[in-house]
Amino acid sequence: MQYAQLDIADLERELATLAQRHSAVSGSNLSLDLTRGKPAPEQLDLANALDGILEGNYMSATGIDARNYGDLRGLPEARELGAEILGLDPDRIIADGPSSLTLMYQVIDAAYHYGLSGPAWSSETPVKAICPVPGYDRHFTITESFGIEMINVPMNADGPDMDQVEALVEADPSIKCMWCVPKYSNPSGCIYSPETVQRIAALANRASAGFIVMWDNAYAVHDFEFPPAELDDILAHAERCGTADNVAVFGSTSKITFAGGGISFVAGSPVMLDRLESRMFVMLIGHDKVNQLRHVKLLHGRVEQHMRAHADLVRPKFEAVDRILNESLDGLGIAEWSRPRGGYFIVVDTIPGLAAEVIDLAGRAGVRLTPAGATHPYGRDPDDRTIRLAPTFAALEEVEAATEVLCLCIRLASARRIRAGRDA
Amino acid sequence: MQYAQLDIADLERELATLAQRHSAVSGSNLSLDLTRGKPAPEQLDLANALDGILEGNYMSATGIDARNYGDLRGLPEARELGAEILGLDPDRIIADGPSSLTLMYQVIDAAYHYGLSGPAWSSETPVKAICPVPGYDRHFTITESFGIEMINVPMNADGPDMDQVEALVEADPSIKCMWCVPKYSNPSGCIYSPETVQRIAALANRASAGFIVMWDNAYAVHDFEFPPAELDDILAHAERCGTADNVAVFGSTSKITFAGGGISFVAGSPVMLDRLESRMFVMLIGHDKVNQLRHVKLLHGRVEQHMRAHADLVRPKFEAVDRILNESLDGLGIAEWSRPRGGYFIVVDTIPGLAAEVIDLAGRAGVRLTPAGATHPYGRDPDDRTIRLAPTFAALEEVEAATEVLCLCIRLASARRIRAGRDA
Repeated sequence: MQYAQLDIADLERELATLAQRHSAVSGSNLSLDLTRGKPAPEQLDLANALDGILEGNYMSATGIDARNYGDLRGLPEARELGAEILGLDPDRIIADGPSSLTLMYQVIDAAYHYGLSGPAWSSETPVKAICPVPGYDRHFTITESFGIEMINVPMNADGPDMDQVEALVEADPSIKCMWCVPKYSNPSGCIYSPETVQRIAALANRASAGFIVMWDNAYAVHDFEFPPAELDDILAHAERCGTADNVAVFGSTSKITFAGGGISFVAGSPVMLDRLESRMFVMLIGHDKVNQLRHVKLLHGRVEQHMRAHADLVRPKFEAVDRILNESLDGLGIAEWSRPRGGYFIVVDTIPGLAAEVIDLAGRAGVRLTPAGATHPYGRDPDDRTIRLAPTFAALEEVEAATEVLCLCIRLASARRIRAGRDA
Repeated sequence: MQYAQLDIADLERELATLAQRHSAVSGSNLSLDLTRGKPAPEQLDLANALDGILEGNYMSATGIDARNYGDLRGLPEARELGAEILGLDPDRIIADGPSSLTLMYQVIDAAYHYGLSGPAWSSETPVKAICPVPGYDRHFTITESFGIEMINVPMNADGPDMDQVEALVEADPSIKCMWCVPKYSNPSGCIYSPETVQRIAALANRASAGFIVMWDNAYAVHDFEFPPAELDDILAHAERCGTADNVAVFGSTSKITFAGGGISFVAGSPVMLDRLESRMFVMLIGHDKVNQLRHVKLLHGRVEQHMRAHADLVRPKFEAVDRILNESLDGLGIAEWSRPRGGYFIVVDTIPGLAAEVIDLAGRAGVRLTPAGATHPYGRDPDDRTIRLAPTFAALEEVEAATEVLCLCIRLASARRIRAGRDA
């Protein structure tokens, strides 16, 4: 029965039970952590063959000595691997070092200070960015570091609310970019629908000059089910509507091989890549092509096979979270949650105004959760209802135990709130 | 006999011989290259054990899983390796990815846009940098990309002309940084004397707020002779004169292990490192610690042993260049050159106004040399006399053949110039 429909006696009884259970758990020295959106050791083990895979041969198939300087676009074979992961043409890809976040920073830096697809953003103030929420805190950190104002737009099951997005960019020429994690979005896990992808591709035609779509396809192949879910090709759409120079696509192997020690990719139009390469030239003589070569040897032509092995490790953790949320919260009318078919996160939405309280209760019971608000620009969730769960890193039984505690805390905080409402 | 003292008949005879030899060489389809300041394949081979060196063990001695995210200062062991290379305290070091040039860019970026050791440089205009010449073109490229004006200062045998440098920073508060390659300077090969190091360490006391010494110790252990030449510790001097927050030290393994695929280091005061780490946090979740761990296994405690093997490969090439320059040019009064005891470059100074012509003559004879002016800001050598030779990459016999051609071209251009002077 929904909590809101319980009579006062039942609610009091429930509250007492929950408070007692919470206090018991809090005394039990639990120490669990669902904050870490990083691969578990067993996932990393899948790529242990990387070290030593070259067997003394550092020459690329295209005759490049990977050990020496040069080749700012990366090894041709590494660009092909990027193409396999991102579903794009290798000619549209630069293969880089371990961090796609660094590439995103460089794209914003180039657009802001030097002009990437139009005049430098810094020549106009203010500069604003559209941030679908909930979103990825590291995108917000980059954006804020440039003093770019962030505008929240709600995320739906098929991607950002595009009616709002289109109205915003048409009304406000100071909006210069939009952040997107289009597949298994961080953290809601949704996949942008074909219509959403098309509308985002066409956005630059409504926006002011220099608009950039930051297309962080971090979970491009991070599926739990096969054949994998598909995401439309934004670059193809953009080409058709004449906005190809306004889209930057990102990917990496951080959650395919090693989170510290993978390779990353940026993709875009020939104009976009030329400009990025000219910026890279200022700060770099060449990427780590040795590691690119290792990744080619390990993954090229067998990315899906590798990701199936990840799925076998990750899927059970997501299923356990969903099962426990269902068992504990279904029908109570106090929470909703996402059921992603891939990626790294689950989102739980509480009754508005309870996320921080739930996270605090969980913390006191020994379960660390991502701080309330971290999924929103400036660390402020205006509804205080979004909780991000990262189930990959912890062991299955820890994920289960932590989710049990989370459910207890959601029930306790919700029962308290509803009880307080009766008093008022 | 000096060319300038030859009588006209001898000079004409010499000119005719040289012109004939140049034309013979030009017809011989030679294709040699002394432009590439990068390691030869045999040098890279010295580090071939890197791939596979971990033998499946990705855990650091300090219990960090190198494969996962995190640790923005790098593995503690990698910082110790940086300390061994740079002769500094590990606590003063951040271990990073493959490119120290990227670290230099990030330091300038931080100082310019955000303020590193004082207010952001961008809050004042103009901003100027002191560039000892000849110097490293990639330093100039970074500097110019920020619109920072570059001021030439002559390089002496013991480092930059410090009387000039001190007078400049005292007179002009818009001077905000100084570039230095203090050991085996690129390209002159000189080592900054202890007095020079001390005066540079103290510069910030004469300069305006936010002044940074960019101390690119790229050739810290790249000696040809052992025990190796010593460089004074600028951070120790800076600490004594209260300028520790105004010095950024850089190093890398690019010319120790792999030029594409090494690791790099930035060192400085606790304040400097805190600020840099906070900037890194914006653009990065963690460096490639796996590659850091590989480097620790290969090099820690045996850097000198490894560099002796490099010296055995590189020294003969430098000796060959010096021998041929001596045989061909000594006593003619038309050229001077450096005799470095380490590093990657030799500088040849021609009669003023002849460098571009010599490089052009060499090019027509099939020998590529670094373009005239590349050793100076804005690509302009005001005396047009400095030629940079990079003897490491080519095979010994190629280095010898190329140097022979260079000497021929210097003689030809010089004889022509002196002959023209007689006519005038």
